Amino acid sequence: MKAAYLGPKASFSHQAALEIFRDTPIQVEALPTFADIFEGVQSSQHQYGVVPFENSSNGSVVQLLDLLADRQMKYNDVKVCAEHYLPVHHQLLVRLSGQDAWRQSGLEEALTHVKKFYTHPQAWGQCSAFLSRNDCKHIVRQDCASTSEAARVVSENEAGTCAAIASNLAAEEYGLARLADSIEDKGDNTTRFFIVAKADITLPKSALQNGVGSSGIYKSLVSFTIDHDSPGTLADALSIFKMHHFNLTSINTRPSRLRPWHYIFFAECEQKHYQNQADAITNLISDLEHVAMSCRNLGSWEDQLEPV
Amino acid sequence: MKAAYLGPKASFSHQAALEIFRDTPIQVEALPTFADIFEGVQSSQHQYGVVPFENSSNGSVVQLLDLLADRQMKYNDVKVCAEHYLPVHHQLLVRLSGQDAWRQSGLEEALTHVKKFYTHPQAWGQCSAFLSRNDCKHIVRQDCASTSEAARVVSENEAGTCAAIASNLAAEEYGLARLADSIEDKGDNTTRFFIVAKADITLPKSALQNGVGSSGIYKSLVSFTIDHDSPGTLADALSIFKMHHFNLTSINTRPSRLRPWHYIFFAECEQKHYQNQADAITNLISDLEHVAMSCRNLGSWEDQLEPV
Repeated sequence: MKAAYLGPKASFSHQAALEIFRDTPIQVEALPTFADIFEGVQSSQHQYGVVPFENSSNGSVVQLLDLLADRQMKYNDVKVCAEHYLPVHHQLLVRLSGQDAWRQSGLEEALTHVKKFYTHPQAWGQCSAFLSRNDCKHIVRQDCASTSEAARVVSENEAGTCAAIASNLAAEEYGLARLADSIEDKGDNTTRFFIVAKADITLPKSALQNGVGSSGIYKSLVSFTIDHDSPGTLADALSIFKMHHFNLTSINTRPSRLRPWHYIFFAECEQKHYQNQADAITNLISDLEHVAMSCRNLGSWEDQLEPV
Repeated sequence: MKAAYLGPKASFSHQAALEIFRDTPIQVEALPTFADIFEGVQSSQHQYGVVPFENSSNGSVVQLLDLLADRQMKYNDVKVCAEHYLPVHHQLLVRLSGQDAWRQSGLEEALTHVKKFYTHPQAWGQCSAFLSRNDCKHIVRQDCASTSEAARVVSENEAGTCAAIASNLAAEEYGLARLADSIEDKGDNTTRFFIVAKADITLPKSALQNGVGSSGIYKSLVSFTIDHDSPGTLADALSIFKMHHFNLTSINTRPSRLRPWHYIFFAECEQKHYQNQADAITNLISDLEHVAMSCRNLGSWEDQLEPV
């Protein structure tokens, strides 16, 4: 049994996959794109896929929405079967050297030697308070394709004049030392991951051991398109969720690409656990079909969000 | 009177601004960021701002949604006062030279001399059919910050071995020649722009002369937040649009950044023109206030979409 995550190695998706499958015999494997992961699951090369769905500060990941939209009907059987919340912490990392005492003498001293920071563009924004410190402002910033790529580049910098903003997992993977911990602005910055699988595959009981356990709340994701020329259809479609006692929690929109200004909607909804969870969503879809041009059940899973 | 558009010069926003204000005495001026444009309008340095809201293939522009969310309440008076649709065409551009006959001998011949393409990352995806031609596949691709930046770089390439994918306006601005016209995959690829202004400023009658004229349909944009712990609130909020005879046409969602998994919703709605257009939206907002935690009227304007 194999689970694919969005690579490269030491990415936040990798960290999520390790947490999810820690207590299972399932092997985790990096794939380069979202599409590779969906193809891997659809073709049963991989039983599971781990993909980021949204970040608490940056919002939805449109690349994932576009794959879930499945405009070419290539991933008919791929559904969401679980979710996982990963707190996102950024560390300032350098390559250690036995010769240069300054690299081990703390942040202030080390920063006077650092000439260049490397990270993924999103991380600059997430660490803006740290980066506006007086002793950071002069340091040049270089974009990388991922935070783990930043760590890899810095691991090859023998002079130690480069520092990466990346995760603890990336620090481990590339043998880097932490100059500063959790330099992100918002301590509650969190990414929500989806675990996708074919409809008939469920997560092993030993997975998600570090989740919140049995919340009793079930979430579902439903996609649908409507006839935009018929006034009131979107409101009608959304009212069906209420009629079936589903609480609508979020809505996302992407272009359907059938024609301009025609959209595919993603509605996420939740319901306290009933005996007949599967029936409830089947009945919802059946009523939605009368109002929508097309609609699809993209899966149901147990809520893993820590109660506030 | 001045209108700010999202720069650099020769960007698609520049083209939109020129079209919108062509028959007016209003001067158009490039500003580097969305925030600069909102600040310019809020401070009355600029009477109007021209900003992309969504593209028919790529969807919403989240940077604009984040400014309309106005989480720090810095742009209280900035509202949408009009929309403009701009067809997006991409041209393959090179620097002409009197000495090299091949540069003027047509696409096939010229492509054998081109070593590198330059454009904005979004444009690769929008021109994928052209770029997968056999005589294009071997050509290296270099990302640029904008399509007009790509044109600028290519205008300095005396050897003529570089080509830019950019607009006709960029070709004019940098004196480049077209090797191939409209190389985008989808001929109907269109970007919708918003014109923002302070609430008491309307567009001059001579603006938008190339629009569809009087459609009789008014669109409005409303943002709101809800208490996610109260089940059914999102559905209730959306049903108020129907109650007030507004047809809900699209919904966008961004993180509110108050706390994780709390959202700000943007609902766009339309209504046939009534005598009391302004009253209708005021009444809608007043009812929405009873259900939502916060809500805001972000402006109303006449529909400019060509009927299909």
